Amino acid sequence: MDHAEVLSAYLTALIDEMVKSGVTDVVLSPGSRSTPLALLFANRKEISIYLDIDERSAGFLALGMAKARRKPVALLCTSGTAAANYFPATIEAFYSRVPLIVLTADRPYELQDVGAPQTIDQSGMYGSHVKRFAEIQIPEYDTRLIGHTRILCARAIAAADSSPRGPVHLNFPLREPLLPDMKYCSANPLELKSVSVKAGRVTLDAQTLSPIVQTIRKSRKGVIICGGLDSEEFEEKITFLADKIGFPILADPLSQLRRGTHSLRNVIEGYDAFLRDAQAATLFKPDLIIRFGAMPVSKALKIWIENQKTAQFVVDGGSRWRDPSGSATEMIYCDESWFCKAITDAVPASSDDTWLNLWKRVNQETKDILSGVGDEKTLNEEKVFFQLNRLLPDHSSLFIGNSMPVRELDTFLFTDQSDLKLFANRGASGIDGVVSTAVGVSLVRENTFLVIGDLSFFHDMNGLLAAKQHRANLTIILINNDGGGIFSFLPQASEKKYFEALYGTPHGLDFAYTADLYGADYKKVDNWDEFGHSFLASFQKKGLKIIEIPTDREENVHIRKRLFTQIGQSVAADAGWKKP
Amino acid sequence: MDHAEVLSAYLTALIDEMVKSGVTDVVLSPGSRSTPLALLFANRKEISIYLDIDERSAGFLALGMAKARRKPVALLCTSGTAAANYFPATIEAFYSRVPLIVLTADRPYELQDVGAPQTIDQSGMYGSHVKRFAEIQIPEYDTRLIGHTRILCARAIAAADSSPRGPVHLNFPLREPLLPDMKYCSANPLELKSVSVKAGRVTLDAQTLSPIVQTIRKSRKGVIICGGLDSEEFEEKITFLADKIGFPILADPLSQLRRGTHSLRNVIEGYDAFLRDAQAATLFKPDLIIRFGAMPVSKALKIWIENQKTAQFVVDGGSRWRDPSGSATEMIYCDESWFCKAITDAVPASSDDTWLNLWKRVNQETKDILSGVGDEKTLNEEKVFFQLNRLLPDHSSLFIGNSMPVRELDTFLFTDQSDLKLFANRGASGIDGVVSTAVGVSLVRENTFLVIGDLSFFHDMNGLLAAKQHRANLTIILINNDGGGIFSFLPQASEKKYFEALYGTPHGLDFAYTADLYGADYKKVDNWDEFGHSFLASFQKKGLKIIEIPTDREENVHIRKRLFTQIGQSVAADAGWKKP
Repeated sequence: MDHAEVLSAYLTALIDEMVKSGVTDVVLSPGSRSTPLALLFANRKEISIYLDIDERSAGFLALGMAKARRKPVALLCTSGTAAANYFPATIEAFYSRVPLIVLTADRPYELQDVGAPQTIDQSGMYGSHVKRFAEIQIPEYDTRLIGHTRILCARAIAAADSSPRGPVHLNFPLREPLLPDMKYCSANPLELKSVSVKAGRVTLDAQTLSPIVQTIRKSRKGVIICGGLDSEEFEEKITFLADKIGFPILADPLSQLRRGTHSLRNVIEGYDAFLRDAQAATLFKPDLIIRFGAMPVSKALKIWIENQKTAQFVVDGGSRWRDPSGSATEMIYCDESWFCKAITDAVPASSDDTWLNLWKRVNQETKDILSGVGDEKTLNEEKVFFQLNRLLPDHSSLFIGNSMPVRELDTFLFTDQSDLKLFANRGASGIDGVVSTAVGVSLVRENTFLVIGDLSFFHDMNGLLAAKQHRANLTIILINNDGGGIFSFLPQASEKKYFEALYGTPHGLDFAYTADLYGADYKKVDNWDEFGHSFLASFQKKGLKIIEIPTDREENVHIRKRLFTQIGQSVAADAGWKKP
Repeated sequence: MDHAEVLSAYLTALIDEMVKSGVTDVVLSPGSRSTPLALLFANRKEISIYLDIDERSAGFLALGMAKARRKPVALLCTSGTAAANYFPATIEAFYSRVPLIVLTADRPYELQDVGAPQTIDQSGMYGSHVKRFAEIQIPEYDTRLIGHTRILCARAIAAADSSPRGPVHLNFPLREPLLPDMKYCSANPLELKSVSVKAGRVTLDAQTLSPIVQTIRKSRKGVIICGGLDSEEFEEKITFLADKIGFPILADPLSQLRRGTHSLRNVIEGYDAFLRDAQAATLFKPDLIIRFGAMPVSKALKIWIENQKTAQFVVDGGSRWRDPSGSATEMIYCDESWFCKAITDAVPASSDDTWLNLWKRVNQETKDILSGVGDEKTLNEEKVFFQLNRLLPDHSSLFIGNSMPVRELDTFLFTDQSDLKLFANRGASGIDGVVSTAVGVSLVRENTFLVIGDLSFFHDMNGLLAAKQHRANLTIILINNDGGGIFSFLPQASEKKYFEALYGTPHGLDFAYTADLYGADYKKVDNWDEFGHSFLASFQKKGLKIIEIPTDREENVHIRKRLFTQIGQSVAADAGWKKP
């Protein structure tokens, strides 16, 4: 057998195992060393290839597709710094528990650490940010070796796809010549067996569950808190549970609980606004907190949680540690949906609505005050989010940018029975890669919208090329305050001497040119009518659409302060307190 | 002392040590966690701050400045994926031996691995690609601790700046509140001592040197090969040596030996073209090879080196291993300039020019044939590089892009006594970050030019924002063949079915919009007159100038093939061979 045949037989066997393990999408960036893998993937009818020239964007594109598909998506690049460009998306995938299969081509053993070009130390290069790393052996025609390496591929994909899901890295040293023998490649040339992994879920035995049930039964003022969690089954199970035990659910937008056809009876969404007021926050003294999912976005909620001396259960089917305030009293490693069902089955229905109604009343007052932002005449960020409640069509997907947008959405996304799937990069919460991740989602789901700030948009403008090349249908709402808006809320804002240069960072970019570059439909709106029209018109058009809303950073700070002050006063009046 | 005072006293002491160690430039990206370092750096009159929103570009901007200044430049970013975006530039700095001081802010110990936002595992996150990593202890007001940490900073900068130079990483966990007390900060509040590191250079003792001298004395057909090396002293020392012993110097463009006021008598630049012909390559049978610097760009030279069974000395003042073909017989760890001087002093002058003249004659024939490209009427990449010989003004800096441009420059850059400083990212040879690195060079040196292909330009378009914001004067020659030109030279080109989709990767981008976005002067040229005029006009203008040259990938392949065939035939005729 010649070199090309060995190369082809070996790699085809591995690709075959990946296909059998369920990989259907490969995002690849052009390069030479990855040639045999690229060509052999392209040769498989089960595989769709998505090209993305910039590997940093490619990493996030794959991340978005994997989020939207809820299954592993593969990445493939050449050797060297190309692989280093996957680092940000790999880290985000690790912390947000998204299955990515990172495949990097490498120079062979004899070219390592001897000054050869495009050769870096790729072994374990993503450190502790992958669930599994494997160095694949150089192609050799040995049935036992190929069988073993096939199994490594199956194991890597199973590791990525089992709880807690996350990225894995396979590094492929390959020797020249790199052109495979395409004629030689049948799907499984050596007729090797393949292996499939069936991963179960973590459940509790009766003995472990029993005291948990007892604590919940005894609770009269319990609160459920849900952060980001992605499971369709969970929405029903958690709302059944809350309904039965009479606990309010403080639902982060990414919990997916604010919108959908499940019961919304117990869902509280205004907590970020009304828990900001220190006095208002004392109105709510729970005797038990049960948390699910990632830590919620709301800082007010985080502080409130820290201040409660009560028992706090943290349920994590991924068996990690989601407790930045160190306030958990029971860390419960158990599938979240199973847990809800087990508790629902074991406890009697609550008959006292007093506690829940207190939450609901303050929540409604809060929403009424927040709705006042609808009367604002000038363009501002808050009203954009308020209007999204009304404007977003049923069955849409909303990708929300980091920094300010996700916080503003948290304040203004109200409950509704229409179907809205929320996405964000909240693993490491970077402003990088957001455009590409949203493009990835839009390649999988209809009616995808992205709301993003200008710095984050700028950071990943390269991500728009994949949108153009793969004909993504995506509406981008670009909130442009010409710089880093979030810093205006931080103490740094008082350091006037350096603030604008170091934090405000005005760039003065006219994004109309960006839209031209990528052939996007573009509208910079001047008033609310234009925004409404442009938004509705965007559904009718295919392709990439950018609606830019110019806003003012200072104005943003003022509006939020005013609203939160009003809410604090309203709660105080309700409780019969005097506000200073 | 309150928190802000402790924070300020501690960090100011560290910054003071960095200033004393010679740091004058800090490239920073906006973020919250890095606030105290950013404000305290900004407060130092010795420090110039360069803002760059995209951390990937920022890393390369600092790399370019450090290359051009030949001294350490610092980077500063917030926690999370921001730091991961430094990975490509850090890797490039490691392999190209450029001193970068990577400073990353981090969340404190109590927020690690507990699901806190923007918190990843930053400890040693660049793996083996930094010379030194140190986790800085959280600020505390303890004289012994502060003294120790000051020394850590001095040691890190010394490590970055001593041979082989490279990046170091200091990770700063910082606790809120993050605002320093600016009033409190004197340069050295605790009146601590500082330490300065005097790093010597590696030299050989007489006993080790003696057999090396003997081998060189005995050699009648020796060859010096110089790859990328950055030392002004070296240019003179190596040409003195070559002159004395009568060896030709096969000089890679990045050796800096092709252009300058040093002696060019022994410098051979056409080897990449005439060693391609297998028969022509056999004309040159050396009895000794002495290599300096990185492996040269030329693949023809690499193959020729591999085929020589003779003794091969590799001189490396950085004590690493630059021998991808495994053909070295003596690895000499010794400062390159010292080595040249020591040998020059120890050997008699050569009196026989036969060997040198053979190289020079073939070299001249090659240059004459290559110059034929000057007659081409249609726009093509080769003639761009040929014309650069004539067009580049004295005392200019040329940054050369990876993939095809550096190879084409290698073929066409002829020797000349005018001053031209060459730059490229040849550590890991990625196409990423090239724009930013060139912008970094242009912020330090006058008359900077960048020649780059369209994929590489696209990859780092974000780098143009720093050019705009920091008013860089830079002329970019953008060779646009709408895709990955280098792949047309590889065997993949035969796989027509997948080639254009996987390798050619046409993007169809109109870069006029990119120029508009960043306020660059832009000209897409149609013919050679326009190119010449635009090029000359660009010197007269300040700011960012982009000259785009549309070329054809297939045409590129044809021209090179034709020239190399002609050269092979010419050498054969000279040697009295018949070409098949």
